[in-house]
Amino acid sequence: MTMQKGNCLVGQSGGPTAAINASLLGVIQGALKDPMIEKIYGMVNGIEGFLKKNFLNLSDLFQEVEQQELLKTTPAMYLGSCRYKLASKQENPGLYEEIFNQFKEMNIRYFFYIGGNDSMDTVWKLSQYAKEISYPIQIIGVPKTIDNDLAGTDHTPGFGSAAKYVATSLLEIIHDTYIYDIPSVTIVEIMGRNAGWLAAASALAKKGYHHSPDLIYLPEVPFNTYEFLKDIRELQKVKKNIIVAVSEGIKDQHGQYIGAQNIGQGTDAFGHAQLRGAGKAVEYMVKNALGCKVRSIELSVLQRSASHIASATDLDEAQWIGQEAVKAAENGVTGHMMVFERISQEPYRLQVGSVPVEKVANLERVVPREWINEKGNNVTQEMIDYLQPLILGEVSVPYCQGIPKYVDISHLHSQKN
Amino acid sequence: MTMQKGNCLVGQSGGPTAAINASLLGVIQGALKDPMIEKIYGMVNGIEGFLKKNFLNLSDLFQEVEQQELLKTTPAMYLGSCRYKLASKQENPGLYEEIFNQFKEMNIRYFFYIGGNDSMDTVWKLSQYAKEISYPIQIIGVPKTIDNDLAGTDHTPGFGSAAKYVATSLLEIIHDTYIYDIPSVTIVEIMGRNAGWLAAASALAKKGYHHSPDLIYLPEVPFNTYEFLKDIRELQKVKKNIIVAVSEGIKDQHGQYIGAQNIGQGTDAFGHAQLRGAGKAVEYMVKNALGCKVRSIELSVLQRSASHIASATDLDEAQWIGQEAVKAAENGVTGHMMVFERISQEPYRLQVGSVPVEKVANLERVVPREWINEKGNNVTQEMIDYLQPLILGEVSVPYCQGIPKYVDISHLHSQKN
Repeated sequence: MTMQKGNCLVGQSGGPTAAINASLLGVIQGALKDPMIEKIYGMVNGIEGFLKKNFLNLSDLFQEVEQQELLKTTPAMYLGSCRYKLASKQENPGLYEEIFNQFKEMNIRYFFYIGGNDSMDTVWKLSQYAKEISYPIQIIGVPKTIDNDLAGTDHTPGFGSAAKYVATSLLEIIHDTYIYDIPSVTIVEIMGRNAGWLAAASALAKKGYHHSPDLIYLPEVPFNTYEFLKDIRELQKVKKNIIVAVSEGIKDQHGQYIGAQNIGQGTDAFGHAQLRGAGKAVEYMVKNALGCKVRSIELSVLQRSASHIASATDLDEAQWIGQEAVKAAENGVTGHMMVFERISQEPYRLQVGSVPVEKVANLERVVPREWINEKGNNVTQEMIDYLQPLILGEVSVPYCQGIPKYVDISHLHSQKN
Repeated sequence: MTMQKGNCLVGQSGGPTAAINASLLGVIQGALKDPMIEKIYGMVNGIEGFLKKNFLNLSDLFQEVEQQELLKTTPAMYLGSCRYKLASKQENPGLYEEIFNQFKEMNIRYFFYIGGNDSMDTVWKLSQYAKEISYPIQIIGVPKTIDNDLAGTDHTPGFGSAAKYVATSLLEIIHDTYIYDIPSVTIVEIMGRNAGWLAAASALAKKGYHHSPDLIYLPEVPFNTYEFLKDIRELQKVKKNIIVAVSEGIKDQHGQYIGAQNIGQGTDAFGHAQLRGAGKAVEYMVKNALGCKVRSIELSVLQRSASHIASATDLDEAQWIGQEAVKAAENGVTGHMMVFERISQEPYRLQVGSVPVEKVANLERVVPREWINEKGNNVTQEMIDYLQPLILGEVSVPYCQGIPKYVDISHLHSQKN
């Protein structure tokens, strides 16, 4: 197949991570090196923004190495995001015509979409349509999510940094908790709607001098209140300060979210329920049943945006996979998602490949049951071995007047009119 | 006055900070250098632990420079803490006899207590009693609090690091928030029961390319729901993503905490109410009145324990003031609290002095009204100038297997029996 000279378009979509800008950088760097690619356009606020003709000239903006390095360690999404699930061609054929007319007008031959499994659905639909109308374009998905729940890849860019944040925060909470000589229970709520990968990362906080978190609950095993309180009582016989890590998505045996205190946020555009309160719910269980000092801590959005403590391994891998996406496009690949394959554990080694996106779009990869202990209240050594390499290495973020220096995002100011 | 050779006792008390171990190090280093001081004892879990004869030999534990440096950058409290307000001599004379018998038995001639204003009350009572019974001992308070509300000192050790954490977190939340092109309000709840110093530090997040946080509410100005919603509506005419910083201690015009959703935690031993929910309460106001997308984020205990992003200025100052406490004791000072005096702003320069502790114990230093704007929804340039130097400089924390390396606290395991 003869590759054609043309322009490249890249977008970001879904929820942010500390590594998605590193992947954007990888795509930009790969595209700058590619003689077949002329201009590099970035769509602002995903497909929604593209349809409003809102894009940036990234070749101009990121020529300088200094600016590239700043982009790499900046949290959230330089190109903004959208939670916009593309309607199918059957539902809205006009939409596809509109998108591809725009592609033609801008001579887009390469389209890279950096996002999670809902975004891979977009990659699938667009690449199908391109085939149908015989429009010559390479459409490739670059994976991204802090939840680590994308199928087909050993792990996802963005996860390692969130895991490093979780493990570091747990360690600091442990130090904070151990100072009082009275019985206490501390519940730490960690992101993860249906997959417990991030909650599992709390286990990386364990050191020789302490054994916390003492209990870890993932969504993959039904949460049993009676067993949980029994676990707490047993532990309270031998230690004073108990630390419990819970995933926000823990469910009971009927599949109902423990934290389903929906405060009227409804659902997001992808139909995901807005969860509140797994940590609070578990805190109330302890308070009501045991009456001891108890508190819950929600780790909040900083799990995905605390770039000052990103994992260097994660950012380097995210950048690499962006570069590889461009190489794959150069080789004629389309309708694929880029993936990591772990070819060895000791030493830790990866290679990058790609899989047909229909094999991964709309799927969710959860924690294997055998990586959770039998009681369902902790994780196994196998899980820890899997996680450990992903959080290694610290990034060097520049500071200015005491706070991190990140890239200018005034183009996202979203001024009205 | 002839100083006597003897042993030194040091303790930590109250709520933890990222800098209180740096002050402990300063006291240890000062004491190691002092030929009048023989042994350095650390009381574990404050006065309560001391009465149970729970103490460590710090001269042995911190001989090595490597161990000292590790202590400096470790969060929370190496010696544990207690929330124990010493009864007055009238209420419990036997208690004072017990404490001073123990002092005599251990030949304690120097006592350093690192804590907040409730702890300074302990310093006052004990130094009064020592005078009454003519027991030769230098008793000195070393200040500590993330709230910056100790009277008599320009600022308090621990505050600068918490301020750096708040400003950094705000910046990262801003990046996270700006990615969506739909109207939203994000409320960030920051610690500070009656003093708004820490909430004010959110203003340090402002950069050239964004102007958030857009609104800042401190406890010093009564919070008016109507005015707040008016402020939000006005802002929504010109920008989409609004970021609001609120102190946990904001109160209405009757002095009632906005976030007074007491979930049954009661009060702590010092009679402080356990507050929950200023951020949530404000979130509900917006949700109910305006119906737009809104979320609240509670910054949690990491404000005081995230040592990986401590302020180098704060830690250096905390260490210095600990060393100066020992010098003051060498010079015969007793019943004083060590303080900072800012002798110049440009360049930023301090000197360390001390004040009689009865002038500061049980007092609370709040934000001056003139450092808050007229509308009561932001802070002035004078506030920003005051805060800026306190957050400068980044610490170099060693990492091990992807997370910070902190000092071993297994002596605080608080095993039962």
